[in-house]
Amino acid sequence: MKTNSGRFFEDYRVGETLHHAVPRTLHGGERAVYHALYPARHAVCSSAEFARHCGLSDAPLDDLIVFHTVFGKTVPDVSLNAVANLGYAEGRWLKPVKAGTTLTATSEVIGVKQNSNGKSGVVWVRTTGRDETGDAVLEYVRWVMVRKRDIDAPAPETVIPDLADAVDPSDLATPDGLDFSAYDFALAGEPHRLGDYEVGEKIDHVDRVTVEEAEHMLATRLWQNTAKVHFDATHRDDGKRLIYGGHVISMARALSFNGLANAQVIVGLNGGSHVSPLFAGDTICAWSEVLDKAETEAPGVGAVRLRLVAHKPEVAPFVLRGEDGKYAPGVLLDLDIWALMPE
Amino acid sequence: MKTNSGRFFEDYRVGETLHHAVPRTLHGGERAVYHALYPARHAVCSSAEFARHCGLSDAPLDDLIVFHTVFGKTVPDVSLNAVANLGYAEGRWLKPVKAGTTLTATSEVIGVKQNSNGKSGVVWVRTTGRDETGDAVLEYVRWVMVRKRDIDAPAPETVIPDLADAVDPSDLATPDGLDFSAYDFALAGEPHRLGDYEVGEKIDHVDRVTVEEAEHMLATRLWQNTAKVHFDATHRDDGKRLIYGGHVISMARALSFNGLANAQVIVGLNGGSHVSPLFAGDTICAWSEVLDKAETEAPGVGAVRLRLVAHKPEVAPFVLRGEDGKYAPGVLLDLDIWALMPE
Amino acid sequence: MKTNSGRFFEDYRVGETLHHAVPRTLHGGERAVYHALYPARHAVCSSAEFARHCGLSDAPLDDLIVFHTVFGKTVPDVSLNAVANLGYAEGRWLKPVKAGTTLTATSEVIGVKQNSNGKSGVVWVRTTGRDETGDAVLEYVRWVMVRKRDIDAPAPETVIPDLADAVDPSDLATPDGLDFSAYDFALAGEPHRLGDYEVGEKIDHVDRVTVEEAEHMLATRLWQNTAKVHFDATHRDDGKRLIYGGHVISMARALSFNGLANAQVIVGLNGGSHVSPLFAGDTICAWSEVLDKAETEAPGVGAVRLRLVAHKPEVAPFVLRGEDGKYAPGVLLDLDIWALMPE
Repeated sequence: MKTNSGRFFEDYRVGETLHHAVPRTLHGGERAVYHALYPARHAVCSSAEFARHCGLSDAPLDDLIVFHTVFGKTVPDVSLNAVANLGYAEGRWLKPVKAGTTLTATSEVIGVKQNSNGKSGVVWVRTTGRDETGDAVLEYVRWVMVRKRDIDAPAPETVIPDLADAVDPSDLATPDGLDFSAYDFALAGEPHRLGDYEVGEKIDHVDRVTVEEAEHMLATRLWQNTAKVHFDATHRDDGKRLIYGGHVISMARALSFNGLANAQVIVGLNGGSHVSPLFAGDTICAWSEVLDKAETEAPGVGAVRLRLVAHKPEVAPFVLRGEDGKYAPGVLLDLDIWALMPE
Repeated sequence: MKTNSGRFFEDYRVGETLHHAVPRTLHGGERAVYHALYPARHAVCSSAEFARHCGLSDAPLDDLIVFHTVFGKTVPDVSLNAVANLGYAEGRWLKPVKAGTTLTATSEVIGVKQNSNGKSGVVWVRTTGRDETGDAVLEYVRWVMVRKRDIDAPAPETVIPDLADAVDPSDLATPDGLDFSAYDFALAGEPHRLGDYEVGEKIDHVDRVTVEEAEHMLATRLWQNTAKVHFDATHRDDGKRLIYGGHVISMARALSFNGLANAQVIVGLNGGSHVSPLFAGDTICAWSEVLDKAETEAPGVGAVRLRLVAHKPEVAPFVLRGEDGKYAPGVLLDLDIWALMPE
Repeated sequence: MKTNSGRFFEDYRVGETLHHAVPRTLHGGERAVYHALYPARHAVCSSAEFARHCGLSDAPLDDLIVFHTVFGKTVPDVSLNAVANLGYAEGRWLKPVKAGTTLTATSEVIGVKQNSNGKSGVVWVRTTGRDETGDAVLEYVRWVMVRKRDIDAPAPETVIPDLADAVDPSDLATPDGLDFSAYDFALAGEPHRLGDYEVGEKIDHVDRVTVEEAEHMLATRLWQNTAKVHFDATHRDDGKRLIYGGHVISMARALSFNGLANAQVIVGLNGGSHVSPLFAGDTICAWSEVLDKAETEAPGVGAVRLRLVAHKPEVAPFVLRGEDGKYAPGVLLDLDIWALMPE
């Protein structure tokens, strides 16, 4: 059998390192396709001149291009037999990625826990994306529920990693040279600086996008993410193609420009839940809540911790959970990130 | 309220300058996506070698890439609350834009006229796109009908700008170095030079393209054009997404290759009407009429003034208006341009 | 009549050379769009670093990008009035194409044979794609059935070219410098080297992709392929748009990564049949059969001859023909290629 049927739950050993295949060189072309797929407008990633004005040598590729590329590398080893993508933690963008960079990825298995039904289990991996110099550009923890190949395989010793609720702001990496002290708010698109946002403040991003089959498949393929369920209309009984959760992340992030145009660069991923599936024809809306604010050592650069929620139009903005504590129907994504913003 | 709800009619003052946000660096990637979206084949923009053979240092990005990018910048300040995009005038491409150029845009308000119903008005702006050196690369006048926020806001003094019916050919800018004296008609795809076209001649471009939701959204996002109506199927009562008028312009221009392969570069936009809306599933056809011809100072380079009409298959080529003087049903676009062509 | 209505059967003369129009400069952007359109993951074309590790100066553009670009150039002169694309032979990729290369194409007419019905005939052309230095990068023979303009036009003398059943492996061109002696199988994604494949071995590539209208039109336009039937829903009586056969080739090739990840670069096209048409909404599956193996002079580099079959889910993998000797319903493509693989 020469084809890859993916790893099953019993194939993971805590402490082992998975070397993911197929390095990928990202060029300006990937950025252009990204900007065709999402209404991305944050100025640092849109304009080389704006980036230079902020102390960088060039416009970095959008932080989520890096995330999706690294994530895509892990799919054949981590999530081909995944039942659900359960969560993220301790994500940090460590170095801006410029056009021409080649990314590779590895994952360390840091936890396993068989489910009580004996048919599947949860696997935690800490994934690191590196550039061609070996520098880490992104790391994050992800955990997924994975089927067992053999239901009779013995349960491994349970190891549940101790994960931070949020990345400590002192651990966030600001890009070398980043300086917002001469930031041009007019060119960036909005006048609001970090001091203008209050913890607890919520912002309805107003804009909406209805998604199409061709778009999410173009996006997901661009990251060399090969999970069948996104591409094959014969895979599910209902004939639907499940949209890659990262498509929702990127769409929500891009929609958040309207109200958070100055949250220029994502540097931390504290957590995230893909609450419910999205299918072609659905419409995505987004809102944000300011969860925290922090200083950084870079001149004029602050950090804002944001809850970014994607939802369908049938649930109102700012509605997250029902009285039962469960996510309200129509909520798609509940993401918790740190972004850099002029103080 | 941190989100941008756009300007309303009473927000515009004649003489003020709008500085549009989010500069954009265009790379070869945008050209590749453009060539995937439209059947663009004009050789100067397709081949660096052909462009060099014509005296240029590299293949410029397609003139309409520049137009859409500059136009997209203006949307948040000019047309978020627009009811209709009414017209264009005095458009000139002033300098070829190469991959790597960063574009910004400003618009001067040059006219306002409240409608008699008191609910909306017409705003005229003269928009200028500039590269990172500050050189103007494109300028054009556009007028739009914009809703009032407050119906009781007083009507401003009416100012209607005096606009030329067409750009005088002596005002057209030919790219530095452009020289068609050794033009390769075989490589360009057609043998017809300017002298082979007669004023009044009409050309049916024969080819047709049926458009899809995914395509027009990819295109419109690529220009960072954020008008809701193009993306949100919940925005209109009929659930349809209105296709960006520029998508029709680019499709018609690309279709016009077949019969006007040597009308290499658009340098003037004399006028244009988006006659009727286009929706996914519709099919676009195109025809052209030669309106005028002129000489330029560049060696071997002439200018042809073209009416470029996009229409649906239900109206025959060359039918523009009915007996009542109104545009015939099925006509989509009536554009008036100057293009450069070998003499 | 200034538009191109294409050549008809009686317009072809054995021995004449067709100079195809519109040279095209390929950049990294075309690669990015290609990788969004197809799940392409072969490491040599995905990663500049991997390519350098294999002795190349940069990651070449995917071999099929070169094929489609050259093929697209030929469409206005060869297949606008084609009834069917009948076959390929003697195809060889002669030089890797890097970003920045400008391609042109010519075709020599090498055979004609009028059909017995007198309404059409078969035309054989040998097409050569060249880069801006004049070097041939690809050549192949294609034959198509073309309609006659005038049924009364006299039948030409029949000339049927003598074509090889397969490219002799000694005639395959390996890229200058290619060296697989330090090949990284883990990074490439699979452990299987040429010695692990046996002649006669069949591989079901397992993954499937359901195709959309927007995707195949984006792809086909990207190659400046202008055949109406791919774009115009009003062209056929059934309102369907026929998908460019090359879209199926690229999809099948990309799907074949799963099981043939180390068949890095296609260097020979021995033959191929577009067995049945594909339409949007259909799902593509693929399987391969190892037909032959050979050595090359490049260090560590072997060649594998593969039958690559694309099919719909309604026909099982490895089913090619029925008892009547005809292709089984649901088979889409039967392609015969040589690819380079570590020995």
